Amino acid sequence: MTTLHEDSLVIDGLIVANWTRPVFEDMRRAGLSAANCTVSVWEGFQDTVDNIARMKAQIRDNSDLLTLVRTTHDITLARQAGKTGIVLGFQNAQAFEDNLGYIDAFWDMGVRVVQLTYNTQNLLGTGCYERDGGLSGFGHEAVAEMNRVGMLIDLSHVGAVTARETITASRQPVCYSHCLPSGLKAHPRNKSDEDLRFIAEHGGFIGITMFPPFMRAGANATVDDYVAAIGYVINLAGEDNVGIGTDFTQGHDAAFFDWITLDKGRHRRLTNHSAETTITSPAGLSTIGELPNLTIAMERAGWRESRVRKVLGQNWMDLFGRVWRG
Amino acid sequence: MTTLHEDSLVIDGLIVANWTRPVFEDMRRAGLSAANCTVSVWEGFQDTVDNIARMKAQIRDNSDLLTLVRTTHDITLARQAGKTGIVLGFQNAQAFEDNLGYIDAFWDMGVRVVQLTYNTQNLLGTGCYERDGGLSGFGHEAVAEMNRVGMLIDLSHVGAVTARETITASRQPVCYSHCLPSGLKAHPRNKSDEDLRFIAEHGGFIGITMFPPFMRAGANATVDDYVAAIGYVINLAGEDNVGIGTDFTQGHDAAFFDWITLDKGRHRRLTNHSAETTITSPAGLSTIGELPNLTIAMERAGWRESRVRKVLGQNWMDLFGRVWRG
Repeated sequence: MTTLHEDSLVIDGLIVANWTRPVFEDMRRAGLSAANCTVSVWEGFQDTVDNIARMKAQIRDNSDLLTLVRTTHDITLARQAGKTGIVLGFQNAQAFEDNLGYIDAFWDMGVRVVQLTYNTQNLLGTGCYERDGGLSGFGHEAVAEMNRVGMLIDLSHVGAVTARETITASRQPVCYSHCLPSGLKAHPRNKSDEDLRFIAEHGGFIGITMFPPFMRAGANATVDDYVAAIGYVINLAGEDNVGIGTDFTQGHDAAFFDWITLDKGRHRRLTNHSAETTITSPAGLSTIGELPNLTIAMERAGWRESRVRKVLGQNWMDLFGRVWRG
Repeated sequence: MTTLHEDSLVIDGLIVANWTRPVFEDMRRAGLSAANCTVSVWEGFQDTVDNIARMKAQIRDNSDLLTLVRTTHDITLARQAGKTGIVLGFQNAQAFEDNLGYIDAFWDMGVRVVQLTYNTQNLLGTGCYERDGGLSGFGHEAVAEMNRVGMLIDLSHVGAVTARETITASRQPVCYSHCLPSGLKAHPRNKSDEDLRFIAEHGGFIGITMFPPFMRAGANATVDDYVAAIGYVINLAGEDNVGIGTDFTQGHDAAFFDWITLDKGRHRRLTNHSAETTITSPAGLSTIGELPNLTIAMERAGWRESRVRKVLGQNWMDLFGRVWRG
C-alpha cells in the first residue's frame, strides 16, 4: 500500500539548495515531481546564463533523477518517470538588467518563475528590507512583458507596496512562492493578513515556507508548526490558493549566507540570517528528503485527503498551468 | 583690449555634445577653460569604460585644443595654455551597476561628476520623470563612497525626494549641474524655489541651463531670458552658489534624442524632446561658440563684473576645489 505522500503530486515552490547530486537524490526521497529551483539571486544577465547552463548540465548528468520543466506536461511526465522536474527560477529580476528583451530570452532558456526584487531596490521596484517606493515605470513594463510570455511573477522578498501594485498591474495570477504570515510572527519578510487576502482575491497564490526565524515558535518550530502556519493562510486565502515553498538551502556554506544576506551579495548587511542559520529547518524537516513527514503531520492535524493533495502539489500545478498557458 | 569674457575663467557645468573636433573647436571659440562632458547616460560599466577610453583618445588626438581635468590645477593649466579642460562626467550612476567598488575605479579613470539617476529609477534612487521613492540603501552607500573619493554628486535629472535626501546625506556639497527654476516655468525637470534654497542652504550649487522647452519664453527664449533665469536663481541661492550648465547637445542626430528620451535608451518614451529639439538653443546661443554673447547679455543686464566672473566660472572652480579636494 502506498502512503498518501507517495500517491500525491508533490511540488515545492522554492528550493535554493547547493545543486549537487546528493541534493537531487534527496529530492527523489522527498517524492518531488517538481521544484522551483533558484538559478539567480544577485547575478546579472551573463552570470545567470552561466548558472542556467550549469543547471542544465546537472540535469543531463543526473538524468536518472532529473528532467527540465518547460510545461506542466513535463511535470506530469517527470512524475510518471519517477523523476524530479526542475523549474528554473530567479529570486531577483537583476538578471533582466536594463533590457526587457532579456525576458523573452530567459523564457526561451526555460525560466518560468521570477521574483521581481530581492530584499532591496532594483530597476523594477523595492524589496522587503527597505523603504518601498513601489513598482517603477520600468517595473510596469517588465510585468507586462512577463505576462505576455507567461512567466510567473514571485513577490516573496518584494516590499509590500511594490507587491500590491504588481498584483494590481499583472494580467496573470502572481505568487508569494515562499512566505509566512506576520499574523503569527511580525517580521519584514512575513506577509500581513491583509496582503495574503489581497493576493488571493486577485487570483494569486501563496507558497508557505518554514524558516524558523520567521515562525512563531522560532528555533523550537516543528513540522506541526509548519502545518499550523499553512492552515492559518488557508483560512485567509482558501485551500485552492496555497502550497508549499520550503526555501531549503541544503548544502550551502557560510559564504553563501553572507552572499544572500548582503545587499547585492557584497555590500551592507540586511539581515542576520548567517547567525540565524544555525537553525536550518524545523524538527522533522531537517532535509528535503524528510518532506514525507509534512504529509504525515497534515494527516495528524486531521486534514482531509483532498486538502493535503492540493497543498502538496495540485494547487501549484493548476497555477503553473494557468500562467504558463501549457 | 580684451573683453570681460576673454578675461574670465569660463566653465560649463554640463555639455553632452557629439564629441568631435568641430565641437572642440567651438569650445575654444567659447573661451571655455573647462566643461563637465557627459561620457555615460544609459551605459553600464563596460560600455562606459569604452566611452572614457574614446574621450581620452579624442583628448590626445586634439591635444592642441584639449586637456584632461583631474584637479582644479589642471583647469588653471588649461586656461594658461589656451585649451579646454575636459571634466569626465556621467548623467547616470547606471555605470556603477551593483558594485560600489566601481566608484573608486571611475575616480581613478578621471571621472569627477556623477548624476545619481537619469529621469527614472535605478539602484540608487529615482529620476525626475516618475514617482520618486527616495534615496535607496544602496544609494546611501554610494553617496558615502562618492564623498570618500571626492566625486561631485549631480542631481539635475534626479527626483525631488531623492535629491533632498541626497543633499541631507552627503558630507560634501552637491549640485544641480544644469537646471531651471519651476518658479519661471512649471516642468518636471525644473526645480522649485524651495528646492533651490534647500541645496544652497546645505552648501550646494546650481548650474543654470537654457533649454527652451524648460524656459518661460519657450521657443522664443533669448540669451537675455537665460540671464534673467540665472538672476532669478541668484536671488534665491546667492551669487556664490550659481554657475552655468548649458546642456549643449551640439552635433547629435535624432537617434541620440530618441536614446536619451526613452527609458534606458530603448523602452518607454519619457518626454517629447525629440519633437522639442527642433528648438535647440535660445537665440544668441545657438552653438557653444556663441557663449561670449552670454557675457555681453550679463553686462547688458547691468551685472557687476564680479558677479559675471563668478557665474561664468569662478563659482564652479571653487566648488570643484572643495569637493575634489584638489
